[in-house]
Amino acid sequence: MAQDRPMGARQICEVLRDQILGGVFGADGRLPSSRTLAQELGVSRTTVTVAYEQLLAEGYIEVRQGARPRVTVAGRAERAIKVAPVGARPLSAYGERIRAFSAPTRSDHKLIADFRYGDLAPSDFPSVLWKRAVNAALAHRGDRLAYDDPRGSYRLRAALQGYLWRARRLRCALDQIIIVNGSQQGLDLCARLLLDPGDRFAIENPCYAMARGVFASTGAMSLPLPVDRDGLVAEALAHVRARLAYVTPSHQFPLGGVLPVSRRHQLLAWARGQGAWVVEDDYDSEYRYDITPVPPLYGLDDSGRVIYLGTISKTLSPSLRIGYLVVPPDLRQVFATAKHLADRHAPLTEQEALAALIESGAYERHVRRARRLNGERRMTLLNALRGCFGDGAAIEGADAGLHLVLWLDLPPSCEAPLVAEAGRAGVGIYPISPLYDPQAGTLPDRVGLVMGYAALDARRIERGVQLLAEAVSRVRPAISTKPRPGFPGTAPALAPATRWN
Amino acid sequence: MAQDRPMGARQICEVLRDQILGGVFGADGRLPSSRTLAQELGVSRTTVTVAYEQLLAEGYIEVRQGARPRVTVAGRAERAIKVAPVGARPLSAYGERIRAFSAPTRSDHKLIADFRYGDLAPSDFPSVLWKRAVNAALAHRGDRLAYDDPRGSYRLRAALQGYLWRARRLRCALDQIIIVNGSQQGLDLCARLLLDPGDRFAIENPCYAMARGVFASTGAMSLPLPVDRDGLVAEALAHVRARLAYVTPSHQFPLGGVLPVSRRHQLLAWARGQGAWVVEDDYDSEYRYDITPVPPLYGLDDSGRVIYLGTISKTLSPSLRIGYLVVPPDLRQVFATAKHLADRHAPLTEQEALAALIESGAYERHVRRARRLNGERRMTLLNALRGCFGDGAAIEGADAGLHLVLWLDLPPSCEAPLVAEAGRAGVGIYPISPLYDPQAGTLPDRVGLVMGYAALDARRIERGVQLLAEAVSRVRPAISTKPRPGFPGTAPALAPATRWN
Repeated sequence: MAQDRPMGARQICEVLRDQILGGVFGADGRLPSSRTLAQELGVSRTTVTVAYEQLLAEGYIEVRQGARPRVTVAGRAERAIKVAPVGARPLSAYGERIRAFSAPTRSDHKLIADFRYGDLAPSDFPSVLWKRAVNAALAHRGDRLAYDDPRGSYRLRAALQGYLWRARRLRCALDQIIIVNGSQQGLDLCARLLLDPGDRFAIENPCYAMARGVFASTGAMSLPLPVDRDGLVAEALAHVRARLAYVTPSHQFPLGGVLPVSRRHQLLAWARGQGAWVVEDDYDSEYRYDITPVPPLYGLDDSGRVIYLGTISKTLSPSLRIGYLVVPPDLRQVFATAKHLADRHAPLTEQEALAALIESGAYERHVRRARRLNGERRMTLLNALRGCFGDGAAIEGADAGLHLVLWLDLPPSCEAPLVAEAGRAGVGIYPISPLYDPQAGTLPDRVGLVMGYAALDARRIERGVQLLAEAVSRVRPAISTKPRPGFPGTAPALAPATRWN
Repeated sequence: MAQDRPMGARQICEVLRDQILGGVFGADGRLPSSRTLAQELGVSRTTVTVAYEQLLAEGYIEVRQGARPRVTVAGRAERAIKVAPVGARPLSAYGERIRAFSAPTRSDHKLIADFRYGDLAPSDFPSVLWKRAVNAALAHRGDRLAYDDPRGSYRLRAALQGYLWRARRLRCALDQIIIVNGSQQGLDLCARLLLDPGDRFAIENPCYAMARGVFASTGAMSLPLPVDRDGLVAEALAHVRARLAYVTPSHQFPLGGVLPVSRRHQLLAWARGQGAWVVEDDYDSEYRYDITPVPPLYGLDDSGRVIYLGTISKTLSPSLRIGYLVVPPDLRQVFATAKHLADRHAPLTEQEALAALIESGAYERHVRRARRLNGERRMTLLNALRGCFGDGAAIEGADAGLHLVLWLDLPPSCEAPLVAEAGRAGVGIYPISPLYDPQAGTLPDRVGLVMGYAALDARRIERGVQLLAEAVSRVRPAISTKPRPGFPGTAPALAPATRWN
């Protein structure tokens, strides 16, 4: 125990603990008296006393007046420590179901152009405004740091209530709004509250894979429904029995269709008839480049069957993790309780900052600016694709959102080689095929790519498309060089606009 | 349609939409040609064209070259809109179970002293440091705004790994740490992954009610275990079969015991024998006023059965919503997947800010300062209680944490009148009885209060105790004025300290 300076109580305590566990004193052994140990270690008796207090509090020793402390636990050497085999049923049914899900991996590899959907450009972020709003929120704490309302900040819900009416023509009461940690938590709450194992849920095919995943994680079965250029084929619901339908009517993900009002009514009539819930994911309705955003399905619902889901992941940043549910009046209470049990409430500072941005009009100005910037990226991408691929590819779903689907004249077998080849060239591409339900047997007959462009500048977009085109030509099978007509369910988005009478 | 200025396309579109839904044009009716309508409204033809494009995109009309647009949907008058009765099984089993849970309510009533446990004083918050850290985090965005690792920021996990070793003697790998939205989300993930309906979970009685709630929400049954002044009576586990145990070994909530090491070993041996999981909630171990914090149970576990749960809700703020799990190696993957499905990941900025505070040592300095400030509050409260109640009350669990339990010499029937009377006097008090399992039949035989003091200054604490004592004397039944000996399971915390040999 050679020490440059006297040991502190903490060190003494640690050493004694190790000695106790190491069996130095034996199960019934006694520690030295505090006086003896103090002399041995060359420290004050108080120091030893503090160490003994700690060991007593932790239960390693017991003391009686006038006697030396006695060890109360068996040393590690005597305890039979075995790593028990993990039980036969270590995880819940939920845990077992999600075992198969792959956790996302993100390569750190720097790409020349990464067309990953969902990423945004930091240069679009209103840094100065946001910083000011966050600092104002940090300055205006109340008189207590306390847990907040599970539904979220009153101020943000009030701001969103106005925003939803102005931007989306959505009318709702303040207590129908629940702030969630991004739309994923909104989906998870819907899944937990509205689906049981063995239930069935109707879902667009292809669709947002994380939605299918979270609904399937309940043990419910997915019923994939076809999608055409107008979005969900609502007629297909006619003979479907399901407890819930998940839809993206403003902008079908990933194919881009806008659900016509007639189909919306069909969908709602189906929901009323079944007593089914409809989850409307309005994930990117801020980005329409041709027309003003289409009002949500929620506004057409007279029977309280639609749960509306919005997010700021596409307008401000996915890493802020703020989304919002608008739930029918009947479900207000149970959603608030579920949110409370799930994580009490969303973090407060950034809710307050967002509320301030919405109140001042800065959020909507930012959305307009982001729409303009992404509109420019979209045109750059469309022009680059047209220039590099000509008739050798078809584009779908480019009228709205932050991505488009590029259908290449390549058989599905070329998908993996193309991804690898593009990656080697420094281009990140993401096939559409994982968004199709593998059970449905409706995989596309060629390679389709979901191309997000919101994080890229013009130079990267153009260079990326050029490199992609070269990669395509390298993997194209020698036998088929002529583009085939009739891409699956698509129309070239570059067709001339409808002329009006 | 009297307008001060010409209508815009958006207004036109809205009016037409209302007219279509109002049945003005009939199901097969045609809209005016764009030229006619433009003349009628006194606007440019382009304006009308834009409105028609919108209606087309929304599916309200269809167009053919050379013909007037035709309405494609039935008017609202013709649609049979009925509010369908909510289905027989509107919510999932989970939803039905949590229906009974009450959502928290928080009165806006300003109190002279609110002894609510869990609140902190904003004056303790390291505002300048936090603001600087948040602003630094806002300034250092990467080259994309993108979804992050579901386990949380790499930087924060690395900082916590060091902190847990320094402060808690807890050794773990980086990928065993999962950042969650406060410890409540950690509990919820444990509940979902480790419990099925019909399972049983062992839990301290009394305990943190939100933990019992979230485990019970899975449909599992609670097995309440007795607690004495040393925390959980681990012997009681001997004949218990359960899949999971929830414990607060560092500081039993709410009674304050520190679980002795022998009981820790008993608990772990039980878990190994059963193949059961142990959830260790280390919610406030930073606050020990007598000894240095007791190392967690996690460190004694050799068989990978303990899930450790920490939080910054008691050191920085409950409204930041940051907590962390340390999971056994076997569970790393499934917890990461569950977090990903639940809400992708925790918000990034505040994770980065916290990481910076931990890296610089500022967090630990803050914890020491907060411990000192809360130690002063604790002494003020103990002195005030001693002064106002003397032997008429017993205090339990005051050695650690941010609360104590005050046992009053009042029968349980006085609880509600006392809460009301104290409230009228401007004092918020919180009975301990809801923390007992109502099924267990072990409700205390007198009124106990859980008194949090971390949000109060000395003046409020003293005034609050004085007002509380007056309220107690007003509700005390005339028959019993003499304090009875032997409060339930308690020892007066003001007893003289043990003397060492």
